[in-house]
Amino acid sequence: MTPDRRTSRLTVEPSREAGARVNLTRARGERTREVILEEATILFSKYGYRGTSLRDISERVGISHPGMLHHFSRKEALLQAVLERVAEHFEALIDDFVKTAQEPAAVREWDAVRQYQSVMFAVVRAEAVEKDHPGHEAIVGMQTMAEEKLTDLFKMYEEKGWLEQGAEPEWIARSIVAMWTGVFMRDALMDDGLYDHDLSIFLRMFVIPLREADPFPPKERK
Amino acid sequence: MTPDRRTSRLTVEPSREAGARVNLTRARGERTREVILEEATILFSKYGYRGTSLRDISERVGISHPGMLHHFSRKEALLQAVLERVAEHFEALIDDFVKTAQEPAAVREWDAVRQYQSVMFAVVRAEAVEKDHPGHEAIVGMQTMAEEKLTDLFKMYEEKGWLEQGAEPEWIARSIVAMWTGVFMRDALMDDGLYDHDLSIFLRMFVIPLREADPFPPKERK
Repeated sequence: MTPDRRTSRLTVEPSREAGARVNLTRARGERTREVILEEATILFSKYGYRGTSLRDISERVGISHPGMLHHFSRKEALLQAVLERVAEHFEALIDDFVKTAQEPAAVREWDAVRQYQSVMFAVVRAEAVEKDHPGHEAIVGMQTMAEEKLTDLFKMYEEKGWLEQGAEPEWIARSIVAMWTGVFMRDALMDDGLYDHDLSIFLRMFVIPLREADPFPPKERK
Repeated sequence: MTPDRRTSRLTVEPSREAGARVNLTRARGERTREVILEEATILFSKYGYRGTSLRDISERVGISHPGMLHHFSRKEALLQAVLERVAEHFEALIDDFVKTAQEPAAVREWDAVRQYQSVMFAVVRAEAVEKDHPGHEAIVGMQTMAEEKLTDLFKMYEEKGWLEQGAEPEWIARSIVAMWTGVFMRDALMDDGLYDHDLSIFLRMFVIPLREADPFPPKERK
């Protein structure tokens, strides 16, 4: 809200109280926006982006349809906001992995982001293989970001002689993202707690110092 | 159709023509059922199972809603039929891989099943992580079938000393399915033709005779 518009609406100088009310309104607006993003993520994970309407989301949030349109005038804009939020979490996850993995001994598995976000990502990523899907570019962007950051990490490993023969940095980068999403979705489906074990064996197959320091760990089931 | 019912409806001995008409009707019914399954698969891949209604499917097929209900009275029954069809293709794929992979030298990558089927599988598998999803059991069954058949194959490899240290047969079985689905979805999204290359390097990381016979192949992009 710009000062001009505020003045024209209030017609008098705003008191401290009015200022506080404006802040409250803004805070409430931000909270509503956050709730919309949460609920949209849940509905996209259940029904896909294409199977969910703005009206479904406004009903679930408990706001009017015009109230919804105030925050997101089009479903495409809402998808972009949902994907931006997931991309931020995903990038933080990759950055955290790259930072701790500067020494192989410190490598640990990635925590999955909260399950409904990962399921939403899996559903929308599958839908978004079609180039005209409004999430296509954002999801290609996430994949590219992850692959580039991980390629840099594994190039450093290669220079230090830490990689198994044939495991080229670009291959590891692509494969670890594919494997991570595959193993995560398997775990969400099968629920046998082998997620960490399976990823850690995968890393040991091509990172030499990792298996020298800590050979293949015993399998731990839930 | 039993002879009794046919007699009671026709009241006279059926001529060759009437018999031919019955066969035609049956053939048309089977074709319609097949078209319904095809179109349902496409809609489930776009909108998810939960985002698609029987009415959406009957509109796309171009039959009346009662005509649709004649074939599938409930959406759950249609999902089961769609998943059975995918499970048959998936099992044939696994059987074919297991058969040719009796000798590592004959290992070749799995062809992806037709893309819209794989995308549908990815979308519905993600939705079906929830235990109350009507596709949950069928998809867990597919995963279990694949993992069991591949575990048997890689146990045979283990007995012959063909596996890299630390690569236990159960781990390979779980991982190769996870990797295959992850790499396939990556390829459908990124479209850079690295699907075969990435899977073949993955196999070479733990199957010793495979990389001895044919070391890491050059990367081929589209």
